[in-house]
Amino acid sequence: MKKNTFKRIGLFIRKDDPVLETALIQVSEFLNSRNLQIFSNEPMSFLPGLEVISIADFPLKCDLTIAIGGDGTMLSASRALAGTELPIVGVNVGRLGFLADVILNNLQAQLARILDGQYRHDRRFLIEAHLNSAEEPISIAMNDVVIHSYQSLHMIEFETHINGRFLNSQRADGLVIATPTGSTAYAMSAGGPILDVDLDVLVLASVCPHTLSNRPLVIAASSVIDITLSEKNITTAMVTCDGRPGHLLEPGDSIRILRHPNRSDLLHLEDHDHYSILRAKLEWGRKLTC
Amino acid sequence: MKKNTFKRIGLFIRKDDPVLETALIQVSEFLNSRNLQIFSNEPMSFLPGLEVISIADFPLKCDLTIAIGGDGTMLSASRALAGTELPIVGVNVGRLGFLADVILNNLQAQLARILDGQYRHDRRFLIEAHLNSAEEPISIAMNDVVIHSYQSLHMIEFETHINGRFLNSQRADGLVIATPTGSTAYAMSAGGPILDVDLDVLVLASVCPHTLSNRPLVIAASSVIDITLSEKNITTAMVTCDGRPGHLLEPGDSIRILRHPNRSDLLHLEDHDHYSILRAKLEWGRKLTC
Amino acid sequence: MKKNTFKRIGLFIRKDDPVLETALIQVSEFLNSRNLQIFSNEPMSFLPGLEVISIADFPLKCDLTIAIGGDGTMLSASRALAGTELPIVGVNVGRLGFLADVILNNLQAQLARILDGQYRHDRRFLIEAHLNSAEEPISIAMNDVVIHSYQSLHMIEFETHINGRFLNSQRADGLVIATPTGSTAYAMSAGGPILDVDLDVLVLASVCPHTLSNRPLVIAASSVIDITLSEKNITTAMVTCDGRPGHLLEPGDSIRILRHPNRSDLLHLEDHDHYSILRAKLEWGRKLTC
Amino acid sequence: MKKNTFKRIGLFIRKDDPVLETALIQVSEFLNSRNLQIFSNEPMSFLPGLEVISIADFPLKCDLTIAIGGDGTMLSASRALAGTELPIVGVNVGRLGFLADVILNNLQAQLARILDGQYRHDRRFLIEAHLNSAEEPISIAMNDVVIHSYQSLHMIEFETHINGRFLNSQRADGLVIATPTGSTAYAMSAGGPILDVDLDVLVLASVCPHTLSNRPLVIAASSVIDITLSEKNITTAMVTCDGRPGHLLEPGDSIRILRHPNRSDLLHLEDHDHYSILRAKLEWGRKLTC
Repeated sequence: MKKNTFKRIGLFIRKDDPVLETALIQVSEFLNSRNLQIFSNEPMSFLPGLEVISIADFPLKCDLTIAIGGDGTMLSASRALAGTELPIVGVNVGRLGFLADVILNNLQAQLARILDGQYRHDRRFLIEAHLNSAEEPISIAMNDVVIHSYQSLHMIEFETHINGRFLNSQRADGLVIATPTGSTAYAMSAGGPILDVDLDVLVLASVCPHTLSNRPLVIAASSVIDITLSEKNITTAMVTCDGRPGHLLEPGDSIRILRHPNRSDLLHLEDHDHYSILRAKLEWGRKLTC
Repeated sequence: MKKNTFKRIGLFIRKDDPVLETALIQVSEFLNSRNLQIFSNEPMSFLPGLEVISIADFPLKCDLTIAIGGDGTMLSASRALAGTELPIVGVNVGRLGFLADVILNNLQAQLARILDGQYRHDRRFLIEAHLNSAEEPISIAMNDVVIHSYQSLHMIEFETHINGRFLNSQRADGLVIATPTGSTAYAMSAGGPILDVDLDVLVLASVCPHTLSNRPLVIAASSVIDITLSEKNITTAMVTCDGRPGHLLEPGDSIRILRHPNRSDLLHLEDHDHYSILRAKLEWGRKLTC
Repeated sequence: MKKNTFKRIGLFIRKDDPVLETALIQVSEFLNSRNLQIFSNEPMSFLPGLEVISIADFPLKCDLTIAIGGDGTMLSASRALAGTELPIVGVNVGRLGFLADVILNNLQAQLARILDGQYRHDRRFLIEAHLNSAEEPISIAMNDVVIHSYQSLHMIEFETHINGRFLNSQRADGLVIATPTGSTAYAMSAGGPILDVDLDVLVLASVCPHTLSNRPLVIAASSVIDITLSEKNITTAMVTCDGRPGHLLEPGDSIRILRHPNRSDLLHLEDHDHYSILRAKLEWGRKLTC
Repeated sequence: MKKNTFKRIGLFIRKDDPVLETALIQVSEFLNSRNLQIFSNEPMSFLPGLEVISIADFPLKCDLTIAIGGDGTMLSASRALAGTELPIVGVNVGRLGFLADVILNNLQAQLARILDGQYRHDRRFLIEAHLNSAEEPISIAMNDVVIHSYQSLHMIEFETHINGRFLNSQRADGLVIATPTGSTAYAMSAGGPILDVDLDVLVLASVCPHTLSNRPLVIAASSVIDITLSEKNITTAMVTCDGRPGHLLEPGDSIRILRHPNRSDLLHLEDHDHYSILRAKLEWGRKLTC
């Protein structure tokens, strides 16, 4: 058992939302009972006295982030804290999540175990998207980068290169480039395989390809992927990272996707079992009874 | 052999486009050689003397429509002429089409055979989409009606009823309701089956459904399909017919899809073989050599 | 409400199995309480006094068949009674079935409603398989005919003709030709669409095709389908109807599949809803809560 | 450029087959012109004078293996030579192969380049299958291990554990565990993704799963996979490695699959491009013309 080094806790939410009330009150009561210092990234109606600090200051002032909401909240916290050493625990106020696995039922006991050191690290890599060889990424993503047609049903036409080698050209509604974390999100809807979360790979899955000869492709996470829109595209295209508002693209534009230099550090209970989450969320079969 | 009753020919194009030059000149030379009367729905740079009439007047003034372009041109002509007795022949200026099967190579001989009565009818049904029980359809479609999210990657949530019976609720990027004609278009990209063109059925295929338990569903073409958007949708949705500019939808809106009362009357050469087109366009296997 | 004409009841089981005990006792108690005459197709340990008659005599001596077991029992009864006027009700002793929809919980009330005339007919068509143009079918099927490789993982190579027209050639583990009834059985495992049960169509779905360009095809139920094995096949092939022990095929053999002249007559409770069964069995979405 | 160290060449074929004549004669003429020593693993009608040695002696007596046939021949040679340092070049006598990429057209020039050192290594890992925890594998595979039902269409029921953790239970025709090399073979027919050939991953793809909630899973190649057949299986099952004659399994049997300790060493021309092979063999799109 690791010794408890979490003294200063940052509560992370996406917005001050009534649905978070029960979770926030339980979390703060528990942290107060342990005499821990609490910060938050947003003013919270249900916890009026908290000191609010910028998420950028979390790594300086906190030892642990507790993200409260769901998987989307975990994605936000992970992107904001990628590259810091600050670990993140997720509390899920809705249905079981792939990332946020502390659930309301029995919340305090689960947090107690984590604060007592009964956790393990789950370091997830992120990817970033660059427009036309710009040095600065337009955005980073923990789930996926999607290049897709915008405002219409017309397909986009694009070429893909991997590490400078031509892969193929396609006409489709779009292309998802997903991390293992994102393989159970939009890439799954597009027909992609499930990737074990600890793999250093990416999956490329086309969205509604206009051919039968398409199939998802799994490549190394260290790959440099270049997607170039055909000059002849008449449809507006967009690049979207983790489903947030996207960036409009012009015909001929190119998007480069590569691994972000830093990882996120998620904490799970020691007995966390990703396969049991897959079984529960994907309706997979239970153990056979003999 | 039927006797030749096609004396007055209407040429249909979508717009005056240089790519049509060769086809238009060949068609008009051939029709002139037979002393037939020619009309067109648009002024044509390459055929300056033609009498231009409204497509609405084609049924009054023409015995046959020759649509020149590709499958999209055939869809336009079919929607415009549905419910009239006016048959349509399609001339394809690009690659082989599913609908437009007279090809440039040997165009005049093929037209001669059709004018000489060596054709057969291929009557395709159309569907129409109604908004919130309005009596007038917002549009008709020969391929498909698609309800889809607009301007973003967020899914829409909707319920489907068939003939008043609840089918299911879904979260997806969209839903395609396609005729057999449309089963090789967008519905195929969404994973739907190929439907033989003479079947009186529709296919419902979800676009990027957020669940593994989805599968395309084939139902009778006489069905009344109601798609109701969840009141809770935060994403803008749209209904699109045959891929044309669509109609925006509000949360709670309902789209009713049903068979259009009239069919289109396509003419094909007597030896037309839809399966050979499927094989050519879908890269299906050729005959085995023993 | 129809008047009750069911006086003589034939109980149909596949074999005398302890798992049927509860259902058989409940059914017989109920039928005895109505003073109805009971026959069975097999001696039954739990109902020792029943008169056992051949299934071939059911149409002569019974007004109604009650098939007790599951969907497989319903398939057996349906094949055996196809072409007679004798209707069939299915009692399901296990999980909810697609065909056998009277369930143990509340069995007697459901049977009472059926005997009181609160039922509706659900007539399903069957198909038959002929070897090398033989006049007599080798078997009939309510779900599917499958041509498949036998005893090995090697693919078979075959050509398909529909109504004498060449469709395509394929290399695959096999080909399923399924009725709407069978579309939720093996054809679904092979990737086929769900077909509404009242459609007069068949689906052809390849099993593990050795190409990406494959897609299920839906055709009219009145079609004549010829599958011809390549002369060069080195793998043993087999044709199997509804999953029963099959018939071995030689290279060059041809299987003709066509609609069986007669239908089966299933009875369901008046409020039977096939879509609710699809939702329950395929984990489809429930109604949205607004 | 590496210096030429290939003096003694072992020709590997699967059997003495007339279809190999042209390739064998060209290869031997070329090797003779370079005064190289030639061995073979089988007597060859077209090259009567060759010294025939056991494949087990190839590593002792040869510096290079030239496998002549197709991808199946490459799989055989790779399995036989895995764990030795002996590299393999593949000559394809039929259509373009994924593994055997020296083609008849221009064969001598291509071999010359390889003998002159213009090659690169492509080391592929293999997997092995163990029955019921036996120390010795029953077989090794370069493409895939498949557990499947045998002699019938009935599904098998099995549980999967990965590194001792329960993954799921399934009912299906079978399960493919494929290497990246095998991802374009049977796993692709079963719906699996394409895996880049240099990834250290495996894909698990179910064959005709009896549920909609199935999806291929990609895991680390270092995983230990245990597949346990249900005690209740009534269907005979078999385990098959690279499609060769398999090993019968009993209900309750368990198959353990893990990475083989050694790799195969394939040689390719320096400008070998696996993506161009994927494009050619899978009918993927070519470069766009702008």
